[in-house]
Amino acid sequence: MSKAAQPDATAPTDDELRTLDAHWRAANYLAAAQIYLMANPLLTEPLKPGHIKPRLLGHWGTSPGLNLVYTHLNRVISARGLDALCVWGPGHGGPSVLANSWLEGSYSETYPDVSRDAPGMERLFRQFSFPGGVPSHVAPETPGSIHEGGELGYSLAHAYGAALDNPDLLVACVIGDGEAETGPLAASWHSNKFLDPVHDGAVLPILHLNGYKIANPTVLSRLPEPELDALLRGYGHEPLHVTGDDPQQVHRAMAAAMDDALDRIARIQHTAREEGGGERARWPVIVLRTPKGWTGPAEVDGEPVEGTWRAHQVPLPGVQENPEHLRQLEEWLRSYRPEELFGPDGRPVADVLACVPEGTKRLGASPHANGGLLLRELPLPALAGFAVPVDKPGTTLHEPTRVLGGLLERVMRDTGERRDFRLVGPDETASNRLEAVFEATGKAWQAETLPVDEHLDRHGRVMEILSEHLCQGWLEGYLLTGRHGLFSCYEAFVHIVDSMVNQHIKWLKTSRRLPWRAPVASLNYLLTSHVWRQDHNGFSHQDPGFVDHVLNKSPEVVRVYLPPDANTLLSVTDHALRSRDYVNVIVAGKQPCFDWLSLDQARVHCARGAGIWEWAGTENGGTPDVVLACAGDVPTLEVLAAAQLLRRHLPDLAVRVVNVVDMTRLMPREDHPHGMTDFEFDGLFTADRPVIFAYHGYPWLIHRLAYSRTGHHNLHVRGYKESGTTTTPFDMVVRNDLDRYRLVMDVIDRVPGLATQAAGVRQAMADARTRHHDWIRAHGTDLPEVADWSWHS
Amino acid sequence: MSKAAQPDATAPTDDELRTLDAHWRAANYLAAAQIYLMANPLLTEPLKPGHIKPRLLGHWGTSPGLNLVYTHLNRVISARGLDALCVWGPGHGGPSVLANSWLEGSYSETYPDVSRDAPGMERLFRQFSFPGGVPSHVAPETPGSIHEGGELGYSLAHAYGAALDNPDLLVACVIGDGEAETGPLAASWHSNKFLDPVHDGAVLPILHLNGYKIANPTVLSRLPEPELDALLRGYGHEPLHVTGDDPQQVHRAMAAAMDDALDRIARIQHTAREEGGGERARWPVIVLRTPKGWTGPAEVDGEPVEGTWRAHQVPLPGVQENPEHLRQLEEWLRSYRPEELFGPDGRPVADVLACVPEGTKRLGASPHANGGLLLRELPLPALAGFAVPVDKPGTTLHEPTRVLGGLLERVMRDTGERRDFRLVGPDETASNRLEAVFEATGKAWQAETLPVDEHLDRHGRVMEILSEHLCQGWLEGYLLTGRHGLFSCYEAFVHIVDSMVNQHIKWLKTSRRLPWRAPVASLNYLLTSHVWRQDHNGFSHQDPGFVDHVLNKSPEVVRVYLPPDANTLLSVTDHALRSRDYVNVIVAGKQPCFDWLSLDQARVHCARGAGIWEWAGTENGGTPDVVLACAGDVPTLEVLAAAQLLRRHLPDLAVRVVNVVDMTRLMPREDHPHGMTDFEFDGLFTADRPVIFAYHGYPWLIHRLAYSRTGHHNLHVRGYKESGTTTTPFDMVVRNDLDRYRLVMDVIDRVPGLATQAAGVRQAMADARTRHHDWIRAHGTDLPEVADWSWHS
Repeated sequence: MSKAAQPDATAPTDDELRTLDAHWRAANYLAAAQIYLMANPLLTEPLKPGHIKPRLLGHWGTSPGLNLVYTHLNRVISARGLDALCVWGPGHGGPSVLANSWLEGSYSETYPDVSRDAPGMERLFRQFSFPGGVPSHVAPETPGSIHEGGELGYSLAHAYGAALDNPDLLVACVIGDGEAETGPLAASWHSNKFLDPVHDGAVLPILHLNGYKIANPTVLSRLPEPELDALLRGYGHEPLHVTGDDPQQVHRAMAAAMDDALDRIARIQHTAREEGGGERARWPVIVLRTPKGWTGPAEVDGEPVEGTWRAHQVPLPGVQENPEHLRQLEEWLRSYRPEELFGPDGRPVADVLACVPEGTKRLGASPHANGGLLLRELPLPALAGFAVPVDKPGTTLHEPTRVLGGLLERVMRDTGERRDFRLVGPDETASNRLEAVFEATGKAWQAETLPVDEHLDRHGRVMEILSEHLCQGWLEGYLLTGRHGLFSCYEAFVHIVDSMVNQHIKWLKTSRRLPWRAPVASLNYLLTSHVWRQDHNGFSHQDPGFVDHVLNKSPEVVRVYLPPDANTLLSVTDHALRSRDYVNVIVAGKQPCFDWLSLDQARVHCARGAGIWEWAGTENGGTPDVVLACAGDVPTLEVLAAAQLLRRHLPDLAVRVVNVVDMTRLMPREDHPHGMTDFEFDGLFTADRPVIFAYHGYPWLIHRLAYSRTGHHNLHVRGYKESGTTTTPFDMVVRNDLDRYRLVMDVIDRVPGLATQAAGVRQAMADARTRHHDWIRAHGTDLPEVADWSWHS
Repeated sequence: MSKAAQPDATAPTDDELRTLDAHWRAANYLAAAQIYLMANPLLTEPLKPGHIKPRLLGHWGTSPGLNLVYTHLNRVISARGLDALCVWGPGHGGPSVLANSWLEGSYSETYPDVSRDAPGMERLFRQFSFPGGVPSHVAPETPGSIHEGGELGYSLAHAYGAALDNPDLLVACVIGDGEAETGPLAASWHSNKFLDPVHDGAVLPILHLNGYKIANPTVLSRLPEPELDALLRGYGHEPLHVTGDDPQQVHRAMAAAMDDALDRIARIQHTAREEGGGERARWPVIVLRTPKGWTGPAEVDGEPVEGTWRAHQVPLPGVQENPEHLRQLEEWLRSYRPEELFGPDGRPVADVLACVPEGTKRLGASPHANGGLLLRELPLPALAGFAVPVDKPGTTLHEPTRVLGGLLERVMRDTGERRDFRLVGPDETASNRLEAVFEATGKAWQAETLPVDEHLDRHGRVMEILSEHLCQGWLEGYLLTGRHGLFSCYEAFVHIVDSMVNQHIKWLKTSRRLPWRAPVASLNYLLTSHVWRQDHNGFSHQDPGFVDHVLNKSPEVVRVYLPPDANTLLSVTDHALRSRDYVNVIVAGKQPCFDWLSLDQARVHCARGAGIWEWAGTENGGTPDVVLACAGDVPTLEVLAAAQLLRRHLPDLAVRVVNVVDMTRLMPREDHPHGMTDFEFDGLFTADRPVIFAYHGYPWLIHRLAYSRTGHHNLHVRGYKESGTTTTPFDMVVRNDLDRYRLVMDVIDRVPGLATQAAGVRQAMADARTRHHDWIRAHGTDLPEVADWSWHS
């Protein structure tokens, strides 16, 4: 039985309650003071406007509730010797988490200049929401956090991700009642159907109902309690209520609820681990109802504030100019009796620290919240065992993702004991042809199973749910606590998590600059079922814009790969899985695709990121007349088919074929670490020859990346231009003018002198397009000359 | 009491059950046949490979369940004379909805070439998922639909949007159990807290548990029934169960559940409308448990198919080449006894049509599903009554969104009786300074209220919930059923609905090309609390990329406006609210902002979309030495401040100031209907002078829009480059090199000859930046010379 699960329910004594309250008051004092003070931190003199910050920024409303949770987590961690982590959903309550971290000492250990004494306290206050200081929200800069609390909705998914494969870890998760209205959070409750009580840790959700969001009551706070209980039971939880505004009574109730919850968790884990099997667990949830802005000003300017939405940010906005506000602030701050809580040197007194655990047991010092510290190298096998043999390019076909499935299966198998690798995806692992992994592990599933089900496994490490939000949230939590993973997703629907990946990139960008944060494994996307092959689904499933979205973000974090075949997919995935602190986007097809490069060639090509495919071109060492460039599997096919047509019809034309795997190579070196210098770029694409670029996604992305290049005015890009429907693969490229015939026409139109010289060839290409249109209307399939095409030089 | 609410619960007779089953069998036959057949539609001869489509595409699994729902909705619509609409969540079941529309005749009325006879039936089959035919999903092309079913998650939000302010309408909504796992759907259940039983219609959710998604069981189907009931009760619903696989028993149970549900709805509406007040209603939900792929092949190649995930798409994939599959297909299709259902001419027999309602009562013919038919002009007042007076530019300050609030208040008031205008937003109407609207209406809220609450109103037309997904989904449903609205959102967090707006743009793009679909009101975004003014929130709230996202989409649909002040905001919003079939994105600040243009000037400027601000420049009719361009309120301020600095320090430099309101003006005329010709563009920006462009968002967007222009190599763009944090407004622009001092330095660096001539000025600018850095570290506020700046020429 794990220590985390040790039941040890002793109600706190009056003395202990007194020290818990002292800790809570100290945290409340420090939280409120961060918003207001830049001097006189201990209120050793009467408060004056000169002590007040020039701009009052921050969120008070949620802070006392978070302080209560932190205090009581401290208690149970100390009492039970737990390893615990807390995800602070209402992360706008930054002052609270900073206050507690400072109290327990983890803050000063991380930032020695903010020492646990009066000068440090003043610095703690001054830096908060101050230019050059620390953000107003819980953020990467906050010790103990894996969760930026600015964009609400993802706390519970992050908590589950952290708990997976961490059997000895308790992950508490405070969910604000505003956040609880979001879709991702509403779906996250069902994560408990995927949590294995044997191999995973426990998640303890604490639903904090303080009644209001920015300007409105919250939906959940206004449900009658039986209805809320029904909802939580329907989510698979056993609710435990803590309600009140009298601190002593709430401390007692909270301590009892925490003990009850942890005893229940201990029993669930004991049953599963010692007795095996059993029903799906009904995990506890704590419902904490306390007033918004609790212990703050009850009324300001005649309006109720405590217990209302008016306490959300800064309850007394006019302290600089309004003496009554200043008086109220001083009264409020002094109501915590700071002189009892801190010595004259500013250090917290012993009573305040009585509940605080030791060392890495402190929430602000948990290595799980700085997951890079725990990260181990992923055991990645030699690729040779998985690569497809390629003697001649373009003659054999493989489904690239199926080939990758072999590699992932081995990784799954080799991490079977360590359990630090997970694959997530919305119900599409098999559809995306990665099903080899099921030979090594199953799909996590704790609910009922039927005989007809396949691959469901209480201990499985493939996570499938029809929610991209949960896939993303679970994986983020898993990675940030020091593990590895990959998210396979339909290309179009990864936009569902645009906003989440924004936040993760921001997290990584910031944490990379913090020397104390150890690098974590990259967040790896495999986007498949892509825009060009939506034969079953059509227009709604056609959107290649995630690449554009990601490339707007911090270049030190984002990487985008478009491997054109099976071996290049193996190579870039291997690279992505070894990398740290990146977001790697890999776009690759699942449909049969020609093999162009052997593994060795693929490695070299992927390492370069972009290169000339000499075997496909006709330049023969001279300067080419035209460059045919491609990025993506389908554009590569069309460019090679176009190159073959040019070879046949215009044998004297010197054609260079360039394939781009790493999209960021196209950017200037100054704009991205992978970017090419102009010298490299001109060497590859020439400075003065027409470049016909067939790109997987929106064509203007290539212009956005390459606009500053010497030869940019010669760059002509074809790509997806929102001409989609349910149709054949080749009709899709024709509709978007990315087809081989159009590319040949583009070459003829762009190479000086060819327009008249090759007018007949151009007409033949136009005729082929007409032939396609007629054929497809009659047969519903692609032209035989297209369907049966293969490369020959 | 509305007709929709008339109770009329009579259990169906055996004869009626027989006709209901005939309708259902006919729909099942037509659905299955669409996936397979391109000839021999009535099976008048033995099935041969030549009758089979060359590519088998589509989704069978959900179709029999949707057919059951359609049949039973027909029954109650006919029996009760309801006006009804149905949102088909599992919209991949396109074959089903098409089949039913064809049966009821609405399909042939919409598409006369697909007549309700044998030739039309053959066309119906052949066109399905066929190149040049119709999509495999429910789509704009589908009569009776307001909901594309490709990307799951939004059905219930759409249904609520449709029901708002439609008191006589019943909106049924089939929710697939796969879809039910998504975040947006999970949150949508709480929409019932916002539905006014007096002024809104009813939503009847039908949760269709067929047990499986693509490859997995679904979470909700594997909950024990009491747990599922608790969940649905917790969501505020009263569950009614229909479970089975015996058609007769299921028909009886479904008819009874429909009657029960409609009786309950009638009672709720009667109580609210006739008796007033009352508790929040507990609306019914039907839980329909039937096998996936019900009535299809039980086993294929020895594997169970009916009732499993294997029935998801095409249950018999090998009919072309496998005689046993072909035999099974024929047996399956003949099991519906088509000869009893259709006459020799292919027309459905009377029994099949017995349940089908008349005229616009038919689900495929509801005008609500073609909302443009019902759309009325929005009563928009003269802007003069709301505009701010501007005698001199840059001397007075207003909060633009607060000024807009006045206009919106009037629109709210003037639609008080008509009730066809709604404002949605995630808890931010007041925070975004639009609170004037609360003088005209309240915030929709059916849950408990407390004395301290403000503006909550059972009949309110402002919708606030902390879920961008619900705001978007409600508004889409509202607009597509013929009403008007506006979504005000934090700029960064509108990315949460990236994927939803994709789908809405795709919907509009397609429906614009369908002559029978009448134009609907545009979807209007007001993005405020933007990237430059996140003083309270910092980096997590800083993202201007939604404009980039939207500009990737169909140019016939998307419009992007960045009004620089209050009067321009009024003008573009007025324009947006009058427009049809667009997605208008308006980015505007809520913080005090200088007034630059009078209303008349604003109108002219916004109509042009981009123009020279002569009063701000120094070109005096000649050719300028440099163009300072700006788009967005903060960049406009910095450009004008830079222009003023240049005027003072380099009085001989001819500076042109250009402001861009309509971003799509920058695109080539061929790429967007608002795009400028090169002649226009060069006239505005010159073809050969340096252009320093200060842009609100990611700078490379401007390059992506303008890369093909003659003077593109002279274009130098400043914008947001992910350098964010919690800091002052001016520090934000300095961090991103968008500040006035940097812009002056850019001018000096780019105008030939200035570098040496104006070296002193350049140094003064660099010194000012240093002064800023020192000042902000010391004071935490902006330099007085910046804070107190105003325009003087």
